Amino acid sequence: MIMDNKKKLSLIMFSGDYDKALAALILANTARQLDMTVNIFFAFWGLCLIRDPEKMSLEDKTAFEKMFTFVAPNGPEDLPLSKMNMAGIGKAMLKEMMEEHDTPDLTAFLKGAQKKGVNFFACKLSVEVMGFKSEEMLPNVKVITAQEYLKDALEADIELFI
Amino acid sequence: MIMDNKKKLSLIMFSGDYDKALAALILANTARQLDMTVNIFFAFWGLCLIRDPEKMSLEDKTAFEKMFTFVAPNGPEDLPLSKMNMAGIGKAMLKEMMEEHDTPDLTAFLKGAQKKGVNFFACKLSVEVMGFKSEEMLPNVKVITAQEYLKDALEADIELFI
Amino acid sequence: MIMDNKKKLSLIMFSGDYDKALAALILANTARQLDMTVNIFFAFWGLCLIRDPEKMSLEDKTAFEKMFTFVAPNGPEDLPLSKMNMAGIGKAMLKEMMEEHDTPDLTAFLKGAQKKGVNFFACKLSVEVMGFKSEEMLPNVKVITAQEYLKDALEADIELFI
Repeated sequence: MIMDNKKKLSLIMFSGDYDKALAALILANTARQLDMTVNIFFAFWGLCLIRDPEKMSLEDKTAFEKMFTFVAPNGPEDLPLSKMNMAGIGKAMLKEMMEEHDTPDLTAFLKGAQKKGVNFFACKLSVEVMGFKSEEMLPNVKVITAQEYLKDALEADIELFI
Repeated sequence: MIMDNKKKLSLIMFSGDYDKALAALILANTARQLDMTVNIFFAFWGLCLIRDPEKMSLEDKTAFEKMFTFVAPNGPEDLPLSKMNMAGIGKAMLKEMMEEHDTPDLTAFLKGAQKKGVNFFACKLSVEVMGFKSEEMLPNVKVITAQEYLKDALEADIELFI
Repeated sequence: MIMDNKKKLSLIMFSGDYDKALAALILANTARQLDMTVNIFFAFWGLCLIRDPEKMSLEDKTAFEKMFTFVAPNGPEDLPLSKMNMAGIGKAMLKEMMEEHDTPDLTAFLKGAQKKGVNFFACKLSVEVMGFKSEEMLPNVKVITAQEYLKDALEADIELFI
């Protein structure tokens, strides 16, 4: 009952960019500080964010899915910037600047978000098309359909596509 | 009257990326399955999505508009991916994976969306700036102003910029 | 009191792309024509938009911040396109087409937006991480936290991430 009165932030995390993911997680964590319900729906490239780099599997995959497993970034810290990636130099600079200002990095934000009660959902269709397996994902990620996402977003106060 | 009670999804389709268009159309079709009103406002590169590749025209265009006609992608299947395009290899892989999982391609999604009652609108300013002509667009696309888009979005339950 | 009854548009300007900025400002100006309250929260690359090219400073910056000052675009007209930048040719074409159709350019849109009452906010964390100084920004830009942005967005009728 109390849950129902909470304000809700609903994010579609479509992009697999390091900087956009950072923005999404800063918003998510900040919303939790305001005691809002926060649901993130990871779809397409966004799935790369919730992929556990130590649990990659090639079993039972088609040739294309295997290729995709290698091509797609292997985990949060391996994601490119949306701008000025410059062979990783831009990201190195950004990470360095973040360190100087004691801003936690993406992996810390991801873990922190789950710890703070941000709910992670994976898009069922994307998971199937990209050939990802549940065991390759971070713990506590629920696979849901686009229909379930929409029903949830209808109840939200802020919906963003990132 | 019954229409007024319907939940509404309002999308700005700004991007001309194959994968983002796919995401938008999956959301649109899913929202229709939930009997929501769905309005897509195609602007800037998004116009490339609703361009009929068989109806391209160079008549009455300035030199720049003609150049733009050739440079901009010619239709849905010609759009690049937002990530990992790699000279089209990434898209070929994605399309192959989609076929294996019986996921329809972008052209099918576009036609399906209109058939299912998704409303397509084109941004008047973008149409003018890019020198597109109505006869170059898919049928049943209404050209509207940004002001008309905003008034409609104010009535929507979910608004996303894609 | 009258303010409270106004419809509100809340934009996060994350991207530093010329075309996306143009889209955001067209929406902002159009919303003002409809007498809506319009708040733009510039974050990450979006900060490049509200940077005054004539007021760049290298004082009191770390080596990394200095590098970043040079790498990041220097002002609105220096921003790349999100698509088809082609070493600036695409943008030159777009600007030329805009001129032919009497569409004002980005700098004019920015100034016009502030004049029309669009409120500009800069993300505190981004400002700190990128090492921007208040004096490097356009006048009348208020630096606020993500928490302040969220509280404001909760009151908005349309929220978009651009």
